[in-house]
Amino acid sequence: MSRQQRQALDEMLRHGPLDLGGEVAQQRALFHDMMTSIPLPSDVKTTEGELGGVPVVTVETSATDPAAVLLYLHGGAYVIGSAADAAGLAAEVSRRTGARAVCVDYRLAPEHPFPAAVDDALAVYRALLDDGTPSSAIAFVGESAGGGLVAATLVAAKDAGLPQPASATVFSPWVDLTVSGDSATSKTAVDASLTPEGLRTRARDYLGTTDPTTPHVSPVFADLTGLAPLFIQVGSYEILLDDAVRLAARAAEHDVHVELQVWPEVPHVFQAFAALLDEGAAALDAAGAFIRARWADDADTSGE
Amino acid sequence: MSRQQRQALDEMLRHGPLDLGGEVAQQRALFHDMMTSIPLPSDVKTTEGELGGVPVVTVETSATDPAAVLLYLHGGAYVIGSAADAAGLAAEVSRRTGARAVCVDYRLAPEHPFPAAVDDALAVYRALLDDGTPSSAIAFVGESAGGGLVAATLVAAKDAGLPQPASATVFSPWVDLTVSGDSATSKTAVDASLTPEGLRTRARDYLGTTDPTTPHVSPVFADLTGLAPLFIQVGSYEILLDDAVRLAARAAEHDVHVELQVWPEVPHVFQAFAALLDEGAAALDAAGAFIRARWADDADTSGE
Repeated sequence: MSRQQRQALDEMLRHGPLDLGGEVAQQRALFHDMMTSIPLPSDVKTTEGELGGVPVVTVETSATDPAAVLLYLHGGAYVIGSAADAAGLAAEVSRRTGARAVCVDYRLAPEHPFPAAVDDALAVYRALLDDGTPSSAIAFVGESAGGGLVAATLVAAKDAGLPQPASATVFSPWVDLTVSGDSATSKTAVDASLTPEGLRTRARDYLGTTDPTTPHVSPVFADLTGLAPLFIQVGSYEILLDDAVRLAARAAEHDVHVELQVWPEVPHVFQAFAALLDEGAAALDAAGAFIRARWADDADTSGE
Repeated sequence: MSRQQRQALDEMLRHGPLDLGGEVAQQRALFHDMMTSIPLPSDVKTTEGELGGVPVVTVETSATDPAAVLLYLHGGAYVIGSAADAAGLAAEVSRRTGARAVCVDYRLAPEHPFPAAVDDALAVYRALLDDGTPSSAIAFVGESAGGGLVAATLVAAKDAGLPQPASATVFSPWVDLTVSGDSATSKTAVDASLTPEGLRTRARDYLGTTDPTTPHVSPVFADLTGLAPLFIQVGSYEILLDDAVRLAARAAEHDVHVELQVWPEVPHVFQAFAALLDEGAAALDAAGAFIRARWADDADTSGE
């Protein structure tokens, strides 16, 4: 892995105009520009639609197998981002798993605070199940706030009596809206993308009057017993490092199969920069292998 | 993975005669009988020898490539166990990596307290390097106390100015001799092998007058900056669960590449029971893949 690549990306992020804690409409536009600055590969097809009353963008590649689905939840601190903005990264996961990605346009704060996002993600999952997709053919994937929303939706699905999907994969998940992990201070200098103040601003937008320790808001405080196998990736140059570590610790304590990968000296959701950074592509390969292995496990459950 | 297999193993361990905190000579004999109760596969060859003045047992399989070496550190709470006792598990790692395993018969407590074990492990590593084996062709592997000793030896190697090996893989590592992780209480009922009291007894044997928070004793308190990529596996039915999680957290904080796998509802060093438990073989496959990938990385470091 190239130190030069990491330094170039760090410079790019530090000098970019994105400020997660900034004015909402402006940051939404900037985020959209950033996430769509690289055109989608020519074999990627996106289709707008609706599932369970929620708008979605379905992302397919030439290798997509109709039997399996990724339920994909985008990042953006619950306030910015969109299903279309996530299409590039979702396509890379789709390509490595052979499954189409259903990217959910869950409602955003501050217009729609908690529990709108969880309600929308759960509604799409329920619609997939109601349409006849077996839970064992569905994998949840999400990045940043979308990773937190993946974990929250797994808990919400359990609480609603729905089956768990085959697996859940989260990139740099934000799972503690109290923003109280050690890395929120210890990694501030090396995090080129996020600030604790920015996260706290967006947490207030999402929470409204809700307690930040609510399990469906901050899954690091939830009972994770019975959750699907979890795959967690994070960079070590992130103020959210401890969110990933504590999610793994909590899942372990609750007897969930969990795998945590910490990639040194790379930034928040470094997988989105796979075109610029060897670690991004390698991490996506590992995530794809985990998702595929879980589908294979489910196809052979005679020993359970 | 089979619940029936897990339950049978749990019964076997709970009704077995091993008591880690028991009388030393008796427990050494019982541990030897348990670890050698299954004969080595016919293609496994063991050779007694010496490296750096320390006795070793070299374990080879038919697939062994002479270019690569596993430096293997056995378990037994620093007081029981031997290189020969570890041959069965070392052979399974050897088979999956194509490398011979050099199992170190480091001196045991209470006869030889800290730092005898670290000194011996480091002496063997230094002898391998002095013999012309490049550090990039060496992987450290260890289980239980041997996993703690792997981490301690990585730190000791750094402190001695030696290069790091290509990778380090630890199964259920004991890295906190203060025995203060949450799982030391929360997982007592489900741990079929170990008790906090047993660990504390053996910690006293190993420590003598040494402070248990000494970094070369309890690597969870060490500066891990610059360490080789770490691969950590642990069962969720272990009082040592938090040792594994905290080692991963510490390594992450210090910008080390670290991967943690938590396997639900399986016991301490479940990889040793691969013949009885699907999870054991699957975990060994994952460890072998990690070790091989690190060698491949080192062969292609042009981008560094």
